[in-house]
Amino acid sequence: MNQSSHQYTTTNTRILLAKRPTGWPDESCFQIEACAEPECGPQDVTVQAVWLSLDPYLRGRMDAGQSYAPGFALGKPMVSRVVGRVIESRNERFREGDFVWGFLDWALRTVVARGEGLHKIGPELGRPSLAISALGMPGLTAWVGAIELGKPSPGDTVYISSAAGTIGQLAGQFAKRAGARVVGSVGSDDKVDFVLKHCGYDAAFNYKTRDMDDALSELCPKGIDVYLDNVGGTTLEAALRHANVAARFPLCGMISRYNEVKDPGVRGMQLMVSKRIVMTGYIVYDHVHKLPAYQLRAAPWFNAGEMTFHEDIVHGIEQAPTALLGMLKGDALGKRLVQVCAV
Amino acid sequence: MNQSSHQYTTTNTRILLAKRPTGWPDESCFQIEACAEPECGPQDVTVQAVWLSLDPYLRGRMDAGQSYAPGFALGKPMVSRVVGRVIESRNERFREGDFVWGFLDWALRTVVARGEGLHKIGPELGRPSLAISALGMPGLTAWVGAIELGKPSPGDTVYISSAAGTIGQLAGQFAKRAGARVVGSVGSDDKVDFVLKHCGYDAAFNYKTRDMDDALSELCPKGIDVYLDNVGGTTLEAALRHANVAARFPLCGMISRYNEVKDPGVRGMQLMVSKRIVMTGYIVYDHVHKLPAYQLRAAPWFNAGEMTFHEDIVHGIEQAPTALLGMLKGDALGKRLVQVCAV
Repeated sequence: MNQSSHQYTTTNTRILLAKRPTGWPDESCFQIEACAEPECGPQDVTVQAVWLSLDPYLRGRMDAGQSYAPGFALGKPMVSRVVGRVIESRNERFREGDFVWGFLDWALRTVVARGEGLHKIGPELGRPSLAISALGMPGLTAWVGAIELGKPSPGDTVYISSAAGTIGQLAGQFAKRAGARVVGSVGSDDKVDFVLKHCGYDAAFNYKTRDMDDALSELCPKGIDVYLDNVGGTTLEAALRHANVAARFPLCGMISRYNEVKDPGVRGMQLMVSKRIVMTGYIVYDHVHKLPAYQLRAAPWFNAGEMTFHEDIVHGIEQAPTALLGMLKGDALGKRLVQVCAV
Repeated sequence: MNQSSHQYTTTNTRILLAKRPTGWPDESCFQIEACAEPECGPQDVTVQAVWLSLDPYLRGRMDAGQSYAPGFALGKPMVSRVVGRVIESRNERFREGDFVWGFLDWALRTVVARGEGLHKIGPELGRPSLAISALGMPGLTAWVGAIELGKPSPGDTVYISSAAGTIGQLAGQFAKRAGARVVGSVGSDDKVDFVLKHCGYDAAFNYKTRDMDDALSELCPKGIDVYLDNVGGTTLEAALRHANVAARFPLCGMISRYNEVKDPGVRGMQLMVSKRIVMTGYIVYDHVHKLPAYQLRAAPWFNAGEMTFHEDIVHGIEQAPTALLGMLKGDALGKRLVQVCAV
């Protein structure tokens, strides 16, 4: 490590997956470990983490291998998207001070062998943290779902679950730009206010306090043309009931299923036929080649203030497990990040 | 009526929907009625029914309005695709002796007001009965599902439920022509033999006597790339489990659901996301504009014997209710028709 970087501690800390959860995970699934500083070998790059991204898909990777990506190894660090700064580089592609992002261990400092999988964050993105949210893979997830698969026409009704989440807040604004009427479901009254005020939603409801069919009848009086599903379960069932003919249902995750041991099934699937619905499961990694074009297209919207992105920031790496658990239960307002150190 | 047509009786018979079924329908849902001969008014066309088509979707239309088409009226005749001959025409578009098809009452003879909805069957189709099966809407249903939505590549595995049914026997042959490996599930050992011998299937199994997961593991060792669903339910669930990444699931009907009062739901829908499956409900009426091109393309295949189509013919209009009930229970080998009179 570069000893001139006095702002960084000399003792590293990382967070391990200590136990696989059954159903909802809890604190006992994680272990905070003090560990040795990593050594930067030839061609390697040492990164000081600044922001860790907490996303629902991490729950799936805590299982042994049920999700689309291999499960995290037991006793090894949790991994997620991390924005950091290069504090030592023995690789000509990176310089000290560069902002970078990659899938990195949950650790204060990590050595990235040969810099592989590290991406430089250029100044054109504005806030560097957007590289792992609005202008990164989550943003592309929202774009592909709301626009490429949803294909909203002006006047269409686009319904989005988890509307206040990372994908939801962006998808709502994209659909609104496309001229759609945008309706969201969220899990608290605060989130209703948030998506109406900040994310371009025309209407939203708290699914914990309202009957879903009543709410959709009232807020989507012309039916649903696009449903961007983040949750599955009874929310997906209600969307099927209120869908219009030829509706598009991009599915980008089923958070309601991640923590259930027993699968109750999705009822009403025969409506897929009678309403000629197209349901498309997708994973953003299949679309990663579109990221540069997406960034060039969308960055000016954020830089000009035409779109906004709200981050829910928790401070301190040791808070990451609690912050993840809370996010899975729905306590984040906007995209949850753990800020590990000052920028 | 034209009194010179001595081969036809002068007393008409028709079959009415007497009662809406709850769950599985039975004979008491139908009423056979002797009725007056229809009168052919100006511009009208009188049709002698020759073949009535019996299809699974008819079950849905016996309900009040749950299906994609309005329910049949209580106390009114059942309606389905009928091939018949014109026995009287006061319309310049039709001549006595023409073979025609249309959605007609289940009756020996029907007057079609102004000939609307009647389609002439040209000699290029070969057997006139194919106009309501292999070269009609059912054939187009199979084509759209197996080819247009299924998009099989050579070497892909295409799995088809109800493989011996109208859609199944055609879809299997289309997928085979496209170079796919074709696997079917059917409800009897006779049907296994039938689809292997006559419909181009590479493999098939009787779902009533084999565990579906075992059968799919053995017969689809490389997984499923296209699943053409006719049944929904546990068959669809098994297909999700054995699907490959980027599989296509055209859904053209869910016969397993038509007679169930309680919907058990489709489990495993989260596999839609992890496997990036595209599920497309479709109804052939949306594709009716493609019928002429489909007929021109496919008719030579049947006329040259490159494709075959097996009809399961029951004789006598009074047999139609029993024949429909049996078909819904799976007793038809091939496409079930009721032959009402000699050609």
